[in-house]
Amino acid sequence: MTQYSPRLAKLIDALRRLPGVGPKSAQRMAFHMLDRDREGAKFLGETIGEALAGIARCPTCRMFCEDARCLYCTAKRAETGQVCVVETPADLMAIENSTPYRGRYFVLMGRLSPIEGVGPEELGLDRLGRALADGSVKELIVATNPTVEGEATAYYLAEMAKARGVKVTRIAHGVPMGGELEYVDGGTLSHALSGRQPV
Amino acid sequence: MTQYSPRLAKLIDALRRLPGVGPKSAQRMAFHMLDRDREGAKFLGETIGEALAGIARCPTCRMFCEDARCLYCTAKRAETGQVCVVETPADLMAIENSTPYRGRYFVLMGRLSPIEGVGPEELGLDRLGRALADGSVKELIVATNPTVEGEATAYYLAEMAKARGVKVTRIAHGVPMGGELEYVDGGTLSHALSGRQPV
Repeated sequence: MTQYSPRLAKLIDALRRLPGVGPKSAQRMAFHMLDRDREGAKFLGETIGEALAGIARCPTCRMFCEDARCLYCTAKRAETGQVCVVETPADLMAIENSTPYRGRYFVLMGRLSPIEGVGPEELGLDRLGRALADGSVKELIVATNPTVEGEATAYYLAEMAKARGVKVTRIAHGVPMGGELEYVDGGTLSHALSGRQPV
Repeated sequence: MTQYSPRLAKLIDALRRLPGVGPKSAQRMAFHMLDRDREGAKFLGETIGEALAGIARCPTCRMFCEDARCLYCTAKRAETGQVCVVETPADLMAIENSTPYRGRYFVLMGRLSPIEGVGPEELGLDRLGRALADGSVKELIVATNPTVEGEATAYYLAEMAKARGVKVTRIAHGVPMGGELEYVDGGTLSHALSGRQPV
């Protein structure tokens, strides 16, 4: 087995906790930090501390947020009356970067998953329920992933909105742009056909 | 452009300084740290600080070293009289992990590269020269990479050793195990043929 000195072994272990980092990458990162970029490593170490201390969750939309005012809960966004529900902060960033949507968000930080013990409370759906009830939301856009659990979550959200008389929509699922029908999986193709729209 | 809050942007920037980490991976790592593994992130931040403070270079072999006694400069290793010269700490680890070699090392932390201003002093070759002159080294094993600069460095090291009457060897270059002659590049094949050995 690889014999590292204790501090080096600890650093490599710590780096391996990052997603997508295996033993080889962790070793490469550690050697890079120690050999070529000690300044960058110092910056990273300090920045992690600052981020952990300074970044919390927005109480309204559950996105990461570091000031009293959340970037995504502005009055201007609230005016649209739209709330887009996504599973993760990365999903929010993807919509924000690639689409013209500029309404509010609600980040579940997960999806309904009875097996993993994730129920409506863990996803903050009580809070979303209250927001739906107070009349400020005109449209709930459900953008959970088209996986089994994401679909179950979407169904649950739709029932919640309907019970409170709020319009609810689901993002379209179908053949991706640039995709070829021949190579698209059957489930996607069925979805695309049943979701056909007049042109 | 992606709009992150300031601390999040800084964290993502800091992560991007790691080798092999682009914008998407950095975002994924940052979100993972903030959302799922705050404890791991805290551990990483602290560990980086400890590693920077506690890990220096061994004055003898230039490998990373954190105590007065370097792991690779033990008396037992010195008894072999062998010193293996490698370019980087990762090369040392590769040899240590995959071969039975248990002699000493000398880590160049680079290679001769006049274009990048890396000369013999930057690689600590004055120190290696003194070690070669004092009679403690019986064999210098040159394990620099078979690149243009690695070969030039190997040539320089060989001349140094010969001038001091020390036996010098170069690790073998040829067809890699499991490789097929048909797909091996010409340079490697020429090397393999000229370096043929009696069986």
